[in-house]
Amino acid sequence: MSLLVVGSVAYDTIKTPHGEAPDALGGAAVYFSLAARIFTPVRLVGVVGDDFRDDDVRLLEARKIDLGGLERVRGGKTFRWSGEYSPDMNRRETLSVELNVFQDFRPKVPEAFRDSRFVFLANASPVTQASVLDQMDRPDFVMADTMDLWIQTQHRELVDLLGRIDGLLLNDSEAMLLTDRHNLIDAGRAILAMGPSRVVIKKGEHGSVLFEGDRIVPLPAYPTSHVKDPTGAGDSFAGALMGFLAQKGSSGPRKSKGQGVEPKTFKVALAYGTVVASFTVEDFGVRRIAEATEGDTRERFEVYREFLTL
Amino acid sequence: MSLLVVGSVAYDTIKTPHGEAPDALGGAAVYFSLAARIFTPVRLVGVVGDDFRDDDVRLLEARKIDLGGLERVRGGKTFRWSGEYSPDMNRRETLSVELNVFQDFRPKVPEAFRDSRFVFLANASPVTQASVLDQMDRPDFVMADTMDLWIQTQHRELVDLLGRIDGLLLNDSEAMLLTDRHNLIDAGRAILAMGPSRVVIKKGEHGSVLFEGDRIVPLPAYPTSHVKDPTGAGDSFAGALMGFLAQKGSSGPRKSKGQGVEPKTFKVALAYGTVVASFTVEDFGVRRIAEATEGDTRERFEVYREFLTL
Repeated sequence: MSLLVVGSVAYDTIKTPHGEAPDALGGAAVYFSLAARIFTPVRLVGVVGDDFRDDDVRLLEARKIDLGGLERVRGGKTFRWSGEYSPDMNRRETLSVELNVFQDFRPKVPEAFRDSRFVFLANASPVTQASVLDQMDRPDFVMADTMDLWIQTQHRELVDLLGRIDGLLLNDSEAMLLTDRHNLIDAGRAILAMGPSRVVIKKGEHGSVLFEGDRIVPLPAYPTSHVKDPTGAGDSFAGALMGFLAQKGSSGPRKSKGQGVEPKTFKVALAYGTVVASFTVEDFGVRRIAEATEGDTRERFEVYREFLTL
Repeated sequence: MSLLVVGSVAYDTIKTPHGEAPDALGGAAVYFSLAARIFTPVRLVGVVGDDFRDDDVRLLEARKIDLGGLERVRGGKTFRWSGEYSPDMNRRETLSVELNVFQDFRPKVPEAFRDSRFVFLANASPVTQASVLDQMDRPDFVMADTMDLWIQTQHRELVDLLGRIDGLLLNDSEAMLLTDRHNLIDAGRAILAMGPSRVVIKKGEHGSVLFEGDRIVPLPAYPTSHVKDPTGAGDSFAGALMGFLAQKGSSGPRKSKGQGVEPKTFKVALAYGTVVASFTVEDFGVRRIAEATEGDTRERFEVYREFLTL
């Protein structure tokens, strides 16, 4: 089924203990798309400047990613981010951010994308995210990401958005910030009560926890010692999750939120997200994720499944 | 099959955001035994002073814990520890430690305990731990715990011990300290290379990771929001793990290290450790773990197993 992602497209300059990558293709919508396309074609809405490289257009288009919604601003410059990771790579410092054309990003969903059944609102202001929903026909399943900045500066708008989506994806410190709780389980439950039928809390190298009704499902990260660059892990996690869901399809337009996706399907989708994120971190930028195949992914998924079989 | 634990018996004064427990029964060997006895009888070797309460002797003896190796030092005082947890309970500060009779603990394994097939060396100096092994007949499976203090002060003795045991249990920061690595996976592999055939790295609320040959198996913690007191979680994890292994038995005296225990059995044992630790933290001290039944445990295990089934 059709899958739409709306979010940032960027050039990142990344420094980790394993090396450096200058002006590497990145951005939430890019990592998301490169992970999701393993399972299903992807429609991308984003914005870039004149400096966006033709090679990168070709890289994405060659991988079933429809750039019909990628706006190119004449005279503008693509979003740039630069960051450096700590020796254990659990923390990173942002060295510089130039929002450039992303600053005034007003996503325009092309007519041909409005019937998308699965929608992912990558990290952006909740007002921007809501403006995408206003342009859609009735999608089956909508998931959003967010960050501390919006929790602190647009709390009300974020709470409004939570009433309109099926799933929220955020990291542990953000979940606690949003709900003012110290315990992750309490935080997850409190977010469920704010609207979405599913909440996924990401814990980086410690995996993730799904909240779904009364069920709380913890999943460990896939163990890899070949971590070269953690950038994009969360976005490719989301991409594989949503890509798998879209591949499986839903049981039709929802009557109540999240209804169209079965719990078992969602859990397997989370496991695929986990596995695909482990590919992403094994090389700089999009190098590894851009080359991942469905075969690679299924193979690693089977190892992960076997790990967890008691 | 017979299971022996050697380690501390203590009175703890614990403060958490949920309250306070003064002079509560504790110590590694106590938490271990109360968890292990869910699966199998336990033989305990430890030391206490005159102040050790008859009620506590009765509590342990009523639960298939053989105190034939519990030395009582006349005129001595039981090991006392006092600590306070941070609001999120991820950190704790030791307020006071009085080693008392534990200071000069020279474990004497009673004649009747020397044929134990499964042996757990709870946290103590590696010299003390090795002295226990010297007293044993040929056990099938020996596992040890350790801590940062011994890694820093008795590194060589600890490395010697690693050559004599089948499994090592330690937490993530200790594993990195022992091996001087930043990556947990690298650390686990490096410890395997030091001798034990199985290494279990505990990550507190994030679960644990097992290293076994080329296999690396991550298991998440059992999600509970009713955390009142994390004290004893690691020791009861170890107790249920070893208790389950002893219940299942081994395929006979080992020819090479760890050989007698099947990988599948070990993984299920780890899952029981995870589940039983989640009981321990739900109340102060040993209150909850002392009341846990085999039925409770199997029920929660089935929920956990279902979580992880993809």
